[in-house]
Amino acid sequence: MSTQYDVVVIGAGPGGYIAAIRAGQLGMKVACIEGHAYDDPKGEPRLGGTCLNVGCIPSKALLASSEEFEKIQHHAEDHGITVTGAKMDVAKMIKRKDDIVTKMTGGIQYLFKKNKVTAIKGWASFSGKVDGGFELTVKTAAGEEKVTAKQVIVATGSKARHLPGITVDNETICDNEGALKFGAVPKKLGVIGAGVIGLELGSVWRRLGADVTVLEAMPNFLAACDEGVAKEMQKIFTKQGLKMNMGVKIGEVKASKKGVSVAYTDADGNAQKLDCDKLIVSVGRVPNTDGLNLEAVGLKTNERGQIDVDAHCQTLVAGIYAVGDVIRGAMLAHKAEEEGVMVAEIMAGQAGHCNYDTIPWVIYTSPEVAWVGKTEQQLKQDGRKYKAGQFPFMANGRALGQGDSQGFVKVLADATTDEVLGVHIINSHASDLIAEAVMAMEFKASSEDIGRICHAHPSLSEVVKEAALACDKRQLNG
Amino acid sequence: MSTQYDVVVIGAGPGGYIAAIRAGQLGMKVACIEGHAYDDPKGEPRLGGTCLNVGCIPSKALLASSEEFEKIQHHAEDHGITVTGAKMDVAKMIKRKDDIVTKMTGGIQYLFKKNKVTAIKGWASFSGKVDGGFELTVKTAAGEEKVTAKQVIVATGSKARHLPGITVDNETICDNEGALKFGAVPKKLGVIGAGVIGLELGSVWRRLGADVTVLEAMPNFLAACDEGVAKEMQKIFTKQGLKMNMGVKIGEVKASKKGVSVAYTDADGNAQKLDCDKLIVSVGRVPNTDGLNLEAVGLKTNERGQIDVDAHCQTLVAGIYAVGDVIRGAMLAHKAEEEGVMVAEIMAGQAGHCNYDTIPWVIYTSPEVAWVGKTEQQLKQDGRKYKAGQFPFMANGRALGQGDSQGFVKVLADATTDEVLGVHIINSHASDLIAEAVMAMEFKASSEDIGRICHAHPSLSEVVKEAALACDKRQLNG
Repeated sequence: MSTQYDVVVIGAGPGGYIAAIRAGQLGMKVACIEGHAYDDPKGEPRLGGTCLNVGCIPSKALLASSEEFEKIQHHAEDHGITVTGAKMDVAKMIKRKDDIVTKMTGGIQYLFKKNKVTAIKGWASFSGKVDGGFELTVKTAAGEEKVTAKQVIVATGSKARHLPGITVDNETICDNEGALKFGAVPKKLGVIGAGVIGLELGSVWRRLGADVTVLEAMPNFLAACDEGVAKEMQKIFTKQGLKMNMGVKIGEVKASKKGVSVAYTDADGNAQKLDCDKLIVSVGRVPNTDGLNLEAVGLKTNERGQIDVDAHCQTLVAGIYAVGDVIRGAMLAHKAEEEGVMVAEIMAGQAGHCNYDTIPWVIYTSPEVAWVGKTEQQLKQDGRKYKAGQFPFMANGRALGQGDSQGFVKVLADATTDEVLGVHIINSHASDLIAEAVMAMEFKASSEDIGRICHAHPSLSEVVKEAALACDKRQLNG
Repeated sequence: MSTQYDVVVIGAGPGGYIAAIRAGQLGMKVACIEGHAYDDPKGEPRLGGTCLNVGCIPSKALLASSEEFEKIQHHAEDHGITVTGAKMDVAKMIKRKDDIVTKMTGGIQYLFKKNKVTAIKGWASFSGKVDGGFELTVKTAAGEEKVTAKQVIVATGSKARHLPGITVDNETICDNEGALKFGAVPKKLGVIGAGVIGLELGSVWRRLGADVTVLEAMPNFLAACDEGVAKEMQKIFTKQGLKMNMGVKIGEVKASKKGVSVAYTDADGNAQKLDCDKLIVSVGRVPNTDGLNLEAVGLKTNERGQIDVDAHCQTLVAGIYAVGDVIRGAMLAHKAEEEGVMVAEIMAGQAGHCNYDTIPWVIYTSPEVAWVGKTEQQLKQDGRKYKAGQFPFMANGRALGQGDSQGFVKVLADATTDEVLGVHIINSHASDLIAEAVMAMEFKASSEDIGRICHAHPSLSEVVKEAALACDKRQLNG
């Protein structure tokens, strides 16, 4: 006899656990099934998925620790502070990160109890359609368990893409998981892939003293970013000492006890070799659908390995939804969360809506990059006439006070209606500053609206206001 | 023969210089007169007023330096970082602050040139009405100069309030000016007045090692804040080691070469004495109207020393406006700036508007406090039915990663319409996080609107979203 639920969610990452909680809030009988991807020391699955276990949360802990170290070593003196012998105890830094992960993932267990979500530990697969729903098989430590659900949410997330011929052992050659737990600072670190994860983690270890070389196949740096932002960030990273090599072709990668040797052809066609102690491979992520047995319910993956869904995240099978990294769209935790809430609300008979045009992007380097809406190159491609207003943090008193004056805000607005179409920010606090821009775009604000709204002085957010005013060439402080 | 202007602005603080720039942008012939309140080493007036010279900007520079020092001394270890012998060179810290002030105040000279604003150096006073406007006399280094203006903006700001019997020499007994340039960290520092300035500057010197005692006449701490916020901040300050004494009555204050002795009666009526090396007197600010000769144009100050104005900042005399600290309302730089823009636009025949209900407040302590709209006690007093949603930074992954998990966000919304009525934040980045709330309130957002808008993960701004959701008890992560 299988246990019956209104909703079963497969996966307890940010898409899945949020969907389960929202469904629970709305009075449905909910289970959330999580496999043994990230077990705790006792062999129990940790909830929270990639994001909480080996993604957003641990990387931000290391980011903060490594930034603190860099500040002490290189910027304390600006303030008149002298220190001697600053040393980083890497094991202690990693333990701090692990403690935060334990706290956050443990928190979800509490949230599940509070919102009456049953957590099931094991690997789920579809068995087939049954009367009024679907049957799933869960491989648990004790054996197999059957559950049935009126409706199912697939929220299985993604895993790091690996390259053929490069064996990731997460000791010497690492993806995001291994790169979060180096036992010591590598002297020489190679990074294949100048994407978000490579840049974030490469920066962490550079700040701690590693000599970091980045190899990227694409000719353009941060192609998803606004071109002006990407150009500025390439300058900043280079100045920080990250060695950036664009347009390379990766050849043979040889790992030995001593390290890794990467043969590659540079953009000019010359054969090159990079010897390093550790190598991070960060070339994108692929959806997790292995073992789901989608065929049992008449589903399959598309050519990109994703599950196809409509605008409301319903798959081709009514009653089965999918959210997050396993479907189309940005692989961002908060996009998955929005979808999770939408789907839970639709299942409860509510409207359910996700505005994909106002999902912010963040790159957690130092400074951070954040944006929402269109880039200049997208607007040009769309043939949309627009105004651009840009303002530097260098002219902002708070930024100077904090010693944090790199970067700028760029506001893009329709040339005729003045509607804000995109906002792009480079700043140490870009991930928070972007919230105002998202709010503005949700309300279809004009650049004049942002420019007329009072911003606290002195604050970094004044730069958003000035950039908005600059759309009409009437910035007040620059 | 006097020089004729369309607009003359008296005072080059944030209200005045912004008004002058905006008037210049709108094509008017503008002069901005600044006296010798803050001269540079050559005896030339520095522009920017209290805010740039001895207020917001320099205090934020010291805030950053002292926070860096505190982090190194007390929090680097959490990250696994060990240092020995951290020392603050106070002279270097003060020089860094002075350099930032020089840069920012110098910047205004550039902005005046760019926007065709004539800067006049000297003390201005009204001579009287003349055909089509007003005549002013400016006492300059060279003698006296007459200027006439069709319209005038008084933006003379405010100065520190002093107490009878307590002579501020800005060496031993200081107001905000002296407290920004101590030559060394005082061993014992007394602060009279637990207001914004006393708490900010008291905190700066505490972080650098001073033993700080605050004496406040009012029984309630931070009475302008939401009561829940004030209560939490009093706890935080006390934990930080600020000795807070509320409800005291200040008696005799004796200064000697060795320091200051403050006799006071505590809240229980017991006679007490505080001996300290330096004393900061921060008991509010009074409008600057001395020497303006308002009577010559038929104006006078009210019982609070302010110039009376209407909702559009026009005084009782058509054509004369006043903005900022010299009129009613909050003594905040950004409030003055909003008024400056409004008045310049009205003078140019535009609508001109200032929404006083959405001006954010910030207290730049560590953590910061920021809010916009109504407090709970105001709503209760107004008899307005409301919902409150509160969410702690302790449950936010980014805050934990940054080691910055004190405080919370509280959202207050109308019980019936769900319109957001107030947002209150305690967090190190509250001054930036509040921008989203101001934007939301300008668009008359509901708490549900904020809760449904996508917030980047992980970011501190997620706590604003969760607090909004908490208004309907449906926070997702707590």
